[in-house]
Amino acid sequence: MPTTSEHERNFISTRDWNKADLDRLLNLAKDMKQNPSKYRNALDGKSLCMFFYNPSTRTRNSTEIAAYQLGMHPTFNSIKDSWVGYNSESIKDTAIVLSRYFDAIGIRIFPVAVDWKYKEGNRILREFAKWSTVPIINFEDDQYHPLQALNDIFTIKEKKEKSEGKKIVISWAYHPKPLPLSVPNSTVLATTLYGMDVTLAHPKNFELDDEIMLAAKNNAKKSGGTLTISHDIEEAYQDADVIYAKSWGSIQQYGKPKEEKALRTPYRDEWCVSEKHMALTKPDSVFMHCLPIRRNIVAKDEVVDGKHSIVYDQAENRLYTVKALLYDLLSSTM
Amino acid sequence: MPTTSEHERNFISTRDWNKADLDRLLNLAKDMKQNPSKYRNALDGKSLCMFFYNPSTRTRNSTEIAAYQLGMHPTFNSIKDSWVGYNSESIKDTAIVLSRYFDAIGIRIFPVAVDWKYKEGNRILREFAKWSTVPIINFEDDQYHPLQALNDIFTIKEKKEKSEGKKIVISWAYHPKPLPLSVPNSTVLATTLYGMDVTLAHPKNFELDDEIMLAAKNNAKKSGGTLTISHDIEEAYQDADVIYAKSWGSIQQYGKPKEEKALRTPYRDEWCVSEKHMALTKPDSVFMHCLPIRRNIVAKDEVVDGKHSIVYDQAENRLYTVKALLYDLLSSTM
Amino acid sequence: MPTTSEHERNFISTRDWNKADLDRLLNLAKDMKQNPSKYRNALDGKSLCMFFYNPSTRTRNSTEIAAYQLGMHPTFNSIKDSWVGYNSESIKDTAIVLSRYFDAIGIRIFPVAVDWKYKEGNRILREFAKWSTVPIINFEDDQYHPLQALNDIFTIKEKKEKSEGKKIVISWAYHPKPLPLSVPNSTVLATTLYGMDVTLAHPKNFELDDEIMLAAKNNAKKSGGTLTISHDIEEAYQDADVIYAKSWGSIQQYGKPKEEKALRTPYRDEWCVSEKHMALTKPDSVFMHCLPIRRNIVAKDEVVDGKHSIVYDQAENRLYTVKALLYDLLSSTM
Repeated sequence: MPTTSEHERNFISTRDWNKADLDRLLNLAKDMKQNPSKYRNALDGKSLCMFFYNPSTRTRNSTEIAAYQLGMHPTFNSIKDSWVGYNSESIKDTAIVLSRYFDAIGIRIFPVAVDWKYKEGNRILREFAKWSTVPIINFEDDQYHPLQALNDIFTIKEKKEKSEGKKIVISWAYHPKPLPLSVPNSTVLATTLYGMDVTLAHPKNFELDDEIMLAAKNNAKKSGGTLTISHDIEEAYQDADVIYAKSWGSIQQYGKPKEEKALRTPYRDEWCVSEKHMALTKPDSVFMHCLPIRRNIVAKDEVVDGKHSIVYDQAENRLYTVKALLYDLLSSTM
Repeated sequence: MPTTSEHERNFISTRDWNKADLDRLLNLAKDMKQNPSKYRNALDGKSLCMFFYNPSTRTRNSTEIAAYQLGMHPTFNSIKDSWVGYNSESIKDTAIVLSRYFDAIGIRIFPVAVDWKYKEGNRILREFAKWSTVPIINFEDDQYHPLQALNDIFTIKEKKEKSEGKKIVISWAYHPKPLPLSVPNSTVLATTLYGMDVTLAHPKNFELDDEIMLAAKNNAKKSGGTLTISHDIEEAYQDADVIYAKSWGSIQQYGKPKEEKALRTPYRDEWCVSEKHMALTKPDSVFMHCLPIRRNIVAKDEVVDGKHSIVYDQAENRLYTVKALLYDLLSSTM
Repeated sequence: MPTTSEHERNFISTRDWNKADLDRLLNLAKDMKQNPSKYRNALDGKSLCMFFYNPSTRTRNSTEIAAYQLGMHPTFNSIKDSWVGYNSESIKDTAIVLSRYFDAIGIRIFPVAVDWKYKEGNRILREFAKWSTVPIINFEDDQYHPLQALNDIFTIKEKKEKSEGKKIVISWAYHPKPLPLSVPNSTVLATTLYGMDVTLAHPKNFELDDEIMLAAKNNAKKSGGTLTISHDIEEAYQDADVIYAKSWGSIQQYGKPKEEKALRTPYRDEWCVSEKHMALTKPDSVFMHCLPIRRNIVAKDEVVDGKHSIVYDQAENRLYTVKALLYDLLSSTM
């Protein structure tokens, strides 16, 4: 496993970063939230290439505003207006050229952009990182969403004072389409790294892949946390401090929409988070989701709009956590 | 009817604003036009989310440059690159999240984006405004285009010294497609509010809706203006100070392209503005259009390029009027 | 032929510029490369409209960063999000209106956007220039790519100390699609203008048009350069200082994909640049391409990644050369 020093110029997965370095990001984000004008124009003259193979609302806008507040120039490149990609131009050529113009490059690439060949999106990001001479930032690929995971640890620590020993349920949900595994993968890795008692709750056939699970178990062992799998949503929610709802598709039928849907459909109603479920958690528990959320499918309005919900604060924090990352990656070269 | 104080943080229709507050915008726009560098960077650090469900040239670019000149960061979000909308994510969630990142949110949404369900676009804007904690600006919906109407009053006052007592003809025209009602609706409301003698000239079947007409009549009563309907373009143009050409579709067959086209087609030639028509107006009359204009369909080249035409000055003013709006909405929070 | 003074406010083709004025751009670009922070914010408050009918990576991003470094605001307009074009709105109207908001307007328009009617894209740019009151910059049309040509002369002078008397081979290559003639046209014009010994190497049927060739011959006569045509790639490469590989379609079957492909296909293998070809050149020769390049079709990896290749430095220089152009066009109006 690489040391952070080799890899900290990229942010492709939290797995590539030492915990001490992630801690530094979290502390910086806290300072940025408390002192909004403190870092204004700190990265004046620097620029960020934002490259999207797929749509975005939170990642794109929070990053663009973070960059602006730091004095940077963000450029939004959609695949629809560009030659980049692994068809028209080699990743090597795109990566080297863009790194001659920009100080960092963020990329979003979903399964649909790589024909649902699992981890191909992540491979492309790592190929970019191989050739780029500036940091590559993962704006969500088909395996990881580390900006979201960093943000969610930040939010948990903010709301619960600390992460260690808190019980979180990563709670699978139905969705009309098969969603990527990036968020559950990154969330189980980050929460185990931060010493939480993690219950991964999902129906059978919705297991995360072995590599992720092994890494998460190792994280838990080192951090003093735990990792439990549950196929019973009600049992899982008992005394939880944090409910993290998220839909994801079955890796068993990855890229086969019809077969995958057959696995997913039976659990539609049972796994939709309701107040009935939240009543099983601790009174001061929080309900999280990375958004966008399909209301009354992933969770009922009564939950999303309810007293436990912190989904908007969670989304707002994206601004501070990505701002911390940009500053951490780029301020040393000022 | 709401007082401005409740609603002035949004700009969804001029109907929501007191005349005194609109006057303040017009005066500010005048100062901004005369002193281009005076307000440079006055809103430094603030940001504007620009959200477009549909294409734009003038609104997008004039607003982006106005924001830049004020020191703000504008972000252009196209529906094609985003999750927002009323399918993928609830308006509530999008509105709350975006208002955590931005200081104001502008939205364009045309009839085609809401399946030609009349006023549904405006309902969506008001739904955004309900949840957003920052001002919502209407970049043209399916009922109103208040930035255009504000701009056109500004332009009329600039060219004619005052609006009161001046005769304006809002002159319907044919167009190959059924166009939204937003511009005629907003224009008839604004011109009656500003004491003009308004002639709404159109063939039968192209009436504006009752709610708009009632509000316009009330405006005229209060302002000392008048509101007349004419189905005879030549009669309408007699002694006019301002000709405002605009095509719009029939509300009677709204969303039914084939049936609507049958209503529209017979008037194609008769209602195209020519020099013959302009000769009926006052010698110093002005010809206006919000652009883009289909030349030789809505009006002949001889008119668009003729001595009465002020269409480019009108378009240029969009820069000053939207700049005034941004400053008015946001400077108090600096 | 126009004097520069009339036309230097536009940059549509290097043919419209005097050599002395192009020299000034090249010197300025050199200073900008050597002193990256020297011109920071020199054009503060100015704005650039970037209008793309077609995709872009290098042109869009290098220009956007150049504008930002100069303190300008660049706006990226895609045809997909705009009314502009020669269908929805007259070029006259678009040009006049945009020039009321912006200090310069850059436009990319490829053959596909004008139904493969040769020079129609260029005609549209000149129509923009006719009506715009601010400089029009060619971001590549269907006849010229002057930003690329300016950049390539800059790169040749940087790598070879001078251009005069150096032998360059403009080396045709196969490509799966018929590519525009803009780059070979502009390259042959610029290299002859700068006193190079130019060999235009291509199979029969891939001649450039007579107008371009006549202008290039005149350039060579004045500059002391030469212009030779070769249909034999191996003969052409003998003792070359610069190999400039580029695919282009046959003007004989312009806009007829099937017929054109039949002309192109026989030369696929023979004209792909390999180390075998490069071995015929001078030991210190350089390999250039404007990128994006189809690897192993236009040139083999061994060449693109080989010791002669300067393709990434060439691409990086786009930043400095367009920055020089923006400054040259706009600084006098500060």
